[in-house]
Amino acid sequence: MKISDLGEFNFIRHISECLNQKLPKEVTGIGDDCAVVPLDKENALLLTTDQLIENVHFVKELLKPYELGYKSLAVNLSDIAAMGGKPLYALLSLGMPVNLDIEWTDQFINGLKELAHAENVFIIGGDTTRSPGPIFISLTVIGKCAASKIKRRSSAKPGDVVCCTGFVGDSGAGLKILLENLPANPKLIEAHCSPRAQLKEGMWLAEQSGVHAMMDLSDGINSDVQRIMEASHCGAQIDLDRLPLSKVFLEACEKYDWMPQELGVISGEDYHLLVTIDPEAYSNISKSFENEFKRPLYEIGKIIKGSELVYLKGDVPYELRTTGFEHF
Amino acid sequence: MKISDLGEFNFIRHISECLNQKLPKEVTGIGDDCAVVPLDKENALLLTTDQLIENVHFVKELLKPYELGYKSLAVNLSDIAAMGGKPLYALLSLGMPVNLDIEWTDQFINGLKELAHAENVFIIGGDTTRSPGPIFISLTVIGKCAASKIKRRSSAKPGDVVCCTGFVGDSGAGLKILLENLPANPKLIEAHCSPRAQLKEGMWLAEQSGVHAMMDLSDGINSDVQRIMEASHCGAQIDLDRLPLSKVFLEACEKYDWMPQELGVISGEDYHLLVTIDPEAYSNISKSFENEFKRPLYEIGKIIKGSELVYLKGDVPYELRTTGFEHF
Repeated sequence: MKISDLGEFNFIRHISECLNQKLPKEVTGIGDDCAVVPLDKENALLLTTDQLIENVHFVKELLKPYELGYKSLAVNLSDIAAMGGKPLYALLSLGMPVNLDIEWTDQFINGLKELAHAENVFIIGGDTTRSPGPIFISLTVIGKCAASKIKRRSSAKPGDVVCCTGFVGDSGAGLKILLENLPANPKLIEAHCSPRAQLKEGMWLAEQSGVHAMMDLSDGINSDVQRIMEASHCGAQIDLDRLPLSKVFLEACEKYDWMPQELGVISGEDYHLLVTIDPEAYSNISKSFENEFKRPLYEIGKIIKGSELVYLKGDVPYELRTTGFEHF
Repeated sequence: MKISDLGEFNFIRHISECLNQKLPKEVTGIGDDCAVVPLDKENALLLTTDQLIENVHFVKELLKPYELGYKSLAVNLSDIAAMGGKPLYALLSLGMPVNLDIEWTDQFINGLKELAHAENVFIIGGDTTRSPGPIFISLTVIGKCAASKIKRRSSAKPGDVVCCTGFVGDSGAGLKILLENLPANPKLIEAHCSPRAQLKEGMWLAEQSGVHAMMDLSDGINSDVQRIMEASHCGAQIDLDRLPLSKVFLEACEKYDWMPQELGVISGEDYHLLVTIDPEAYSNISKSFENEFKRPLYEIGKIIKGSELVYLKGDVPYELRTTGFEHF
């Protein structure tokens, strides 16, 4: 059997089963945005790692090295944000063709540095090596958070309101625009090339006891909601008419005849946060969020009993024509 | 300018300069076997990451996946050993061709698991993704140690005795044997395929105040001694006649007309520890080490003033014909 027969998520589950580990109860292993290990009486360490591989995660000719450096760190910081943590340190591994220009790596490091400085993250180590093929980038980020306030994928409860913290689809539209070399609003390209990790939002949401589950939107709502459903043993209902879609995104969809709601739930890399909130706490949290961040917390559906993901369009169940991104 | 024009070590220095970070004084960043960050009043966290890339670090057809899994963790544990630490957790990133057999990854995980279980290391997370080219493996290991006992590359002093904790060259000979498909003693191949991280030795040596600098022998004595020299601003003198060379290694050198002393200092991946010891403490430490580990601590030279690496053969300076391994 090949890895492609299993698919990415089954493969991760398969590895986890192969490892057959009995983790200490204060340790969270494979299966959330970050691993969690004890730090001191009050705090836990968060650890996360993400790879960016040329021609899988990025096309060298379409993404400036500065943007790639920035984005490589941003996607890892987003995993820390998803647990409500504060990032502290990063390790950078680079596998590079020997004929790569130093100018390229300098710009890559500059992009990484800009975000690291802005978020007070120190690059404390890594590994550099020759690659006989594509450029390989792997970052590991270490953060911390109050152990009692960590938000996990497994804490959603039937009845919870499902929300996200920003527009969906902009990054996916930006990628299509880059790949197909289409004229479009640069904001969409920026959403794809320079995503912002929602660290402040994550820390704020972690403080709210009414917030149950949280994760970051890396693979797209359709895929990511299913991660929460699996971890929390529940279903979800997403109202496509309530998806937060930006004006520039809708303009591009109109212009290029893309289906906005399909693209909004299928496309990934928006790196906003997906949260489920106790329905009794929702109204207060929603108001306070808007007050704090000067933009809404978007309600997009609810957690239901069972194990199904149901899309609604005008109160009628709707079948997606496509599915989310998997690596295999 | 290309990366290959700079070379690996200059490239790492260049990145470090580009990052231009002011690290907190209790943090050790780029430049030692591990990064060091504070954990609690007494202990520090150690962090290290290493990549293994197909056709750079290993040839898939020459190394069993089980051995590769074992070795991927071993080389990272060796970095923890080099600081005198105890490994705790690991994150595993895999970039794999979609048509890779699950049987291969299962065996890889089994090898990794064997060593992880033996050393009480938990695999707590990672990332899996498709690779459009070679297999990419990246491991990050987190360990801890008493902050006051960390051994660094920068602590060597002129007059120190330079020692290593085991035979050199076996792994390099094993690699030559594999690459050239030569008949030879399987012990050499085993030294290359299944290196043992010297964790117990590292922790024991860290307890000895007379041990000044320590690192692991990953790139070979010729390269690794220079890392200590640079970090400690000193020179070194290595006595080629005192190199610990195994019987099977010497037999293979004889059989294939390899120069044993050249190969012994140039070839890497032995993963023993390289230490420099206060000359006044040396005799006691050496005896206690032999008592503890039932094998000698091998004296191979001394730290000298200046910045030169001098090889001696029968008390006469000797010029190597080749140089050590660099990735670019």
